[in-house]
This record gives sequence, structure tokens and C-alpha cells, in this order.
Amino acid sequence: MAKDSPHINPKLPEKGQSVLTADAYVEGILRGDRYMLGRAITLIESHAEKYRNLAVEILDQCMPHAGRSIRVGITGAPGVGKSSFIEKLGLQIIEKGNRLAVLAIDPSSRISKGAILGDKTRMEKLATHASAFIRPSATGHSLGGVTRKTRESIILCEAAGFNVIFVETVGVGQSETAVSHMVDFFLLLVLAGAGDELQGIKRGIMELADAIIINKADGENLDHAEKTRMAYKRAMQLFPPKESGWTPPVMTASAVSGLHLPEIWNAVEEYRKLTQKNKYWDRKRKEQLRQWLHESFEDLIYQRLHNDKNLENEMKKLEKEVIHARLSASGAALLLFKSWVEGLQGKN
Amino acid sequence: MAKDSPHINPKLPEKGQSVLTADAYVEGILRGDRYMLGRAITLIESHAEKYRNLAVEILDQCMPHAGRSIRVGITGAPGVGKSSFIEKLGLQIIEKGNRLAVLAIDPSSRISKGAILGDKTRMEKLATHASAFIRPSATGHSLGGVTRKTRESIILCEAAGFNVIFVETVGVGQSETAVSHMVDFFLLLVLAGAGDELQGIKRGIMELADAIIINKADGENLDHAEKTRMAYKRAMQLFPPKESGWTPPVMTASAVSGLHLPEIWNAVEEYRKLTQKNKYWDRKRKEQLRQWLHESFEDLIYQRLHNDKNLENEMKKLEKEVIHARLSASGAALLLFKSWVEGLQGKN
Repeated sequence: MAKDSPHINPKLPEKGQSVLTADAYVEGILRGDRYMLGRAITLIESHAEKYRNLAVEILDQCMPHAGRSIRVGITGAPGVGKSSFIEKLGLQIIEKGNRLAVLAIDPSSRISKGAILGDKTRMEKLATHASAFIRPSATGHSLGGVTRKTRESIILCEAAGFNVIFVETVGVGQSETAVSHMVDFFLLLVLAGAGDELQGIKRGIMELADAIIINKADGENLDHAEKTRMAYKRAMQLFPPKESGWTPPVMTASAVSGLHLPEIWNAVEEYRKLTQKNKYWDRKRKEQLRQWLHESFEDLIYQRLHNDKNLENEMKKLEKEVIHARLSASGAALLLFKSWVEGLQGKN
Repeated sequence: MAKDSPHINPKLPEKGQSVLTADAYVEGILRGDRYMLGRAITLIESHAEKYRNLAVEILDQCMPHAGRSIRVGITGAPGVGKSSFIEKLGLQIIEKGNRLAVLAIDPSSRISKGAILGDKTRMEKLATHASAFIRPSATGHSLGGVTRKTRESIILCEAAGFNVIFVETVGVGQSETAVSHMVDFFLLLVLAGAGDELQGIKRGIMELADAIIINKADGENLDHAEKTRMAYKRAMQLFPPKESGWTPPVMTASAVSGLHLPEIWNAVEEYRKLTQKNKYWDRKRKEQLRQWLHESFEDLIYQRLHNDKNLENEMKKLEKEVIHARLSASGAALLLFKSWVEGLQGKN
């Protein structure tokens, strides 16, 4: 595999290997070097506390160069055809002169990196294209952690000059909601039913969508797909108007025949025009950054609490005091808090 | 209303009024003075930071005198007849020489204290009995807060010599689970259906129950109640054996006729005998105390974060930095954490 093949997951520096400086990473990223971008994302995804300061330094330096992309969330149940859809739509976008980064997250799975890579090789042409960067994240971690890491990866990709970011997620659990909070445009892929019924998509997810795509609308499925489209269209009309002023289109599409793929990208572009004009775009981005800060702070406190050996020992001692009724839990909590703060004091 | 009427909610000391010392409160509580007990619980329930240390001091001193009661959680949907059931069962328990405290919590409601008091006057005889203490908590607060305050109130009631504690909660939301984690025995009240179907009780709640009571089994309802009992009995047999070694009985009961009330209390006593013998009782209590410490600590951190004016100001400043892309959210979170710790340092 070539050194700059975009879909490899570079390893963390091993013992004896050199860790680069933040400046070196940033210089590489700003140059658009996909290998350096990949290594920096690996640092961000690392659970090792020792890489955290370096990762934050890289992020801070990239921040002024970020934010100039359109971020599109793409979700749908397993089997809905997300990979083929992204491959075809992605190539079309690149042909128009864009640079595309695809961040694929799956917080529900703990499958190995190998398995995810295997899946992504279905995006064969995209994966080897010089204007694309594909990054699967096989983190079987807390949703909060995945959210933070994906947001940070978006920043780095933008600093590396990618002006279209796809965040792909499997449509299960709460990950769609998390993704919808970090993108500009949220695209929901569904399949045609065996009639005109909706395929058990949760109302809450439909409400988040800025477009609904009935995928695999080709061959003898075409008729079903159109009926399903009408059903979703009726269902969408029941929702109140969106704050963005945007009316989510419901479209059929096919990665095989290419049906409606240009129209889908046109819709995304129209959405950008509309919301940049009515200022919703900026308002949403600002609100997302605010949200991101609050979540990062909570995440940091959680990390500090759960990686503190002294605190753990103190907790064990105080548990005994409480269990033997020498202290109330609230009294013990006060002591624990005091000792934690004193410990942090030494480190700061 | 008499000064020591057990179901009044004493007010916090007003400006100019004297706050007693922790010793004075504790002396009153250990003496079994219900008025002092009520005032101490009011301190515990206060959201004012300035009373927190006093409350914890009282708790710590009461702790060695607590723990010697049987704690019974009682839940059921609105209208299931909890108040009448508790009144009748409670009087029966008191006649046997016990002292009973009833803590009624309803985290889902924000109704005024007046409304809840009105409700509790349905326990007329119990409310005026010298061996009973009834305390409604009309806190429309977070479940975490309610949980902490109820646990602490249990400690004070036990120190005041109440050897049976009822924790009553409305069977909606997550409060049943929270209550089941702070009691020894968990009692679920249900109503007879119009046939033999179960009344939409969640499987998760049934699994928590140490006894299921089909209430209002009197008059022409008796037959329905018996059919419902059989349905619950069958449903309960589908659950795996309990860690406690206890098989939850399913019984009909009536506060009007007194049907099966003695049998219900016998079941609670039998449960105590069984689990004290097989050591489950101790194990569960210890695990609950451990859990309580962890939750108190989290609750304390949450409080400290949300009542910190400096932190709030610093957050606003850093929000601007992040929104103007001068800093990443993670970088800002690190600065925020540092400044918070430095602020705490000054206070400790």
C-alpha cells in the first residue's frame, strides 16, 4: 500500500520512533499531505493522555484555517447502500473540482479496523482518488468520545484543504443525532418498502433530515421506490417548518444508474445559498461551536476523574468509612473533592 | 397546626432568625423530636449552598445511629391507591410497636407544596399518630438531586428512631429504579384490569419488584383482581431467579376491607429474615452505600461547576475565542479547566 494511500490508518509512533512536533504536523496538513493528516487524526483518536496536549496544539493551529467546507451528514440503516452512494456522489463532486473527505463512524460496533477497511474498499475509485481522503473510525467507545474526535477530525480535514466533508454513520442508536449536531446538512438514506409504507424510521430522525433519499431506485425497484417517495413526502409535510427556512426534498436515487445524483448535490448547494443568505448557516455553526466547547469541557472533566489514580485510592478508603457508617456519603464526597482539587493543584 | 404535627414542612430560617448548630439539630433528632427532624430535612433539601456544610455535619453525626430500619419502596401509577394503602398498612405496623416514617417523592411534578400536602391529608390517622412521620418532597428537581436528598432523609429518620421507612413514589419515569436502589424491599402496586391482561406495567419495573400487590381488591372488583393476580403470577415466573434468593409473591389487597394487609407485612418480615440469613441484605446495603458515595461525588462536582460565577464568565470569554476560530474547543476546554482548578484552590 502506497505511503500516501488515503484510507490507511497510520499507527501511533512506537517506542523509539520519533513523534513529530506540532509545527511539523501542521505544516504537513496545511500543505494538504494526506499521510500527515492521517497521522494527526490518529493522535486525536489516541486514548493515551500523553498525546493529548500535542493533539490540542495541532488543533489550535489548524483552527484559523478550518470552517470553510460544507459538512454533510449521511445516515441510513445497514444495507441501505451508503458506501456505493457515497462513492458515486463523491466522484461526481470531485469532478466539479472539489476535494472530499469522508469520515465514517460507527459508535455501535467494536469490529476490528480490518473489517471496516474491508467495507470501505467498496469505495474503490474514491479511495484511490487524489482529491479524496477516506477515514474510517473503528472506535468502540462512548458516543461522547466519538463525537469529540469526529469534530476534531473535521477541523484537520478542512485545514488540509478539503472543502466537502461527509460524515457517514450507521443509522442506529443515538449517533444520528450526534452527527446532525456537527454538520450543516443532514441526509437520510432509506429503502423502498414492499408497498408504500415507511420502513420503521424513527420520527425523530426524519425530523432531523434536510433531505430524504429513497436509494436503490433502479430496475424493477423503481416503481416501489416512487411509491415510497410519496409516502415519505406526505409524512414530511406533517412536520412544522424548519428554522432554516428550508423544505427538505424527498428524492429517489440510484448509485447503479446514477439517477438524481446531480439533483441531490444541487439541493445541498441550494441549501447553502439559502441559509447563508438568511444567516441561519452562521447561527447554526456558532451554536455548534458553543455546544462543542461545553461538551469538550465535560469530556475533559470526565477524563481527569477517571484517569486519576490518587482519586481512585482515596475513593476506596472513603468507601470503607461510609460502609462502616463513620461518615455520610455526602461528607465523604466533600473530602474526596477537596483531595482531588489538592492533587490537581500539584499538577498545574 | 401543632408545632410537632409530623406532616408540616418547616421553613428555612429567615433573615434575622437564628440557625441552630449541628449539635442542636442532632441532639433533637436523636431525642426523636419530629419538629427538629423536619427542620433538618428542610436544610438537606435546601438549594442554598450556605446550608450545605451544616447539613453534611448533621448527617455525619447521625450516620452511626442510622441503618437499623427496614426500608420499603412503594410505587404504582397515579390512582392505584397508594395513600390509602400506606395509611392502613402503616397503622397496622405501628400497632405492632414500630415507628414509621413515610417519605413521599415525586420527581416528575412541580406542583406546589400545598397541593402535595392536600394529597397527604388522605393519610389522616397516620399523619397525626405519635409514632409516624410523614414527609412529602415537592421538589421539581433533577432525579439525581431527589435521590440524594431522599437517601439523606432516610438517614435522619433512622437516627430519630424510626425503624420502618416507606419511600413512596409515583410510578412514572425513572424514579422507581432510583427508589429501588435505596430500599431493601420494593413493593409494586397495580390495579385489576377489565379481564386478565396486565396493565401496561413495564417489564423493567416488574423485574425490580419484591412483591406485587393487586390493590382495590374489594366489592365487585374481587373477581377481576384474582384474575389479574394470576396473570402477574404467570408473568413473574418468566423472570430468572433473584440474586436475593427471594421469590416475589403476587397478592391481592384492599385498604377498604383490610384484605391481606397482615400477609403483606409478613412477607416483608420473611424477606428480611431470609436475606439476613443468606447475607444478601448486608451485601445490598454495602453496595448501595458505595453507589451513594459515587453519586454524591458526581452530584457535588455538578453543583460546583454550575454554581461557579467565575467559571461562567470564563466560559463566555472562551466561547468567543472558539466562535472566532482563534482556539479549538478542546484547547479552550483545557484553559477553562485550569482556571477552574485555580479558582477552587483559592477557596480550599
